[in-house]
Amino acid sequence: MSVTDEYLNNNEGFAGSFTGPLSLAPARHMAVVTCMDARMNIFAILGLHEGDAHVIRNAGGVVTDDTIRSLAISQRLLGTRQIMVIHHTDCGMLTFTDDVFKREIEEETGLRPWWAPESFPDLEDDVRQSIRRIEVNPFLPCTADVRGFVFDVATGRLTEVK
Amino acid sequence: MSVTDEYLNNNEGFAGSFTGPLSLAPARHMAVVTCMDARMNIFAILGLHEGDAHVIRNAGGVVTDDTIRSLAISQRLLGTRQIMVIHHTDCGMLTFTDDVFKREIEEETGLRPWWAPESFPDLEDDVRQSIRRIEVNPFLPCTADVRGFVFDVATGRLTEVK
Repeated sequence: MSVTDEYLNNNEGFAGSFTGPLSLAPARHMAVVTCMDARMNIFAILGLHEGDAHVIRNAGGVVTDDTIRSLAISQRLLGTRQIMVIHHTDCGMLTFTDDVFKREIEEETGLRPWWAPESFPDLEDDVRQSIRRIEVNPFLPCTADVRGFVFDVATGRLTEVK
Repeated sequence: MSVTDEYLNNNEGFAGSFTGPLSLAPARHMAVVTCMDARMNIFAILGLHEGDAHVIRNAGGVVTDDTIRSLAISQRLLGTRQIMVIHHTDCGMLTFTDDVFKREIEEETGLRPWWAPESFPDLEDDVRQSIRRIEVNPFLPCTADVRGFVFDVATGRLTEVK
């Protein structure tokens, strides 16, 4: 059985005890921006309930134009007002540089990516960078309550970045 | 107590029973691309275990340059080989058009977004569009095992899009 089919099989069990639809707009008016990392079960880490908060995830949990697109829709159409930005220890984004990653792809494919890979050398600095990108963005109406954190994959604990 | 502080408080409990670090690379070589929707607890829906799969989420679960950036890092640096694309019923992306959303922002801020909001009128068509964007992308080495689904927020069930 493929991994996808195994997950579909798991979903049969999930649907069997599913308790029905919730509202589209997040009940707690929260949007979480975090990394795609496989170890981060955000619902468990934050004690989220289904329906509470938007969850936006990409490589690094960095704020790109696509993150801004998602946050603009989240705030303007679905009423979120607060943002948590969460990076984590042992992140893959700490292990390479944009220049090398782009050069390797160009050497293999003949095409240089037109997007920045968004690697970063320092976790806390990049949390601050992500928050700053949100704060100065002209398309987001609610930037007063944005807080940043590092999740420790060894302890499960969040530490706020000031 | 703010919502953020409540979630930090929840995290104290989570960390108290945390069982320690897993590997950086996803154990099941899977990357899931899905919507930021607050009702979608992807770990529960798919029966994922921590460490299994990358989870990439944005407004709609659409494939943008940032999704490709995340998938390129996922496949090239962290060894994922399969992709599940999951949209869902009652999605906010079905409720507006790009033109109106961009015009409203321009009227309010004086700036027209330079990114497409990526609204879509048909769920299954947009799942196919997202898969197609992955299949033709030159930066992704593994595009043979990409499957698309719609999650029904009323029943909890995934249905494959062919």
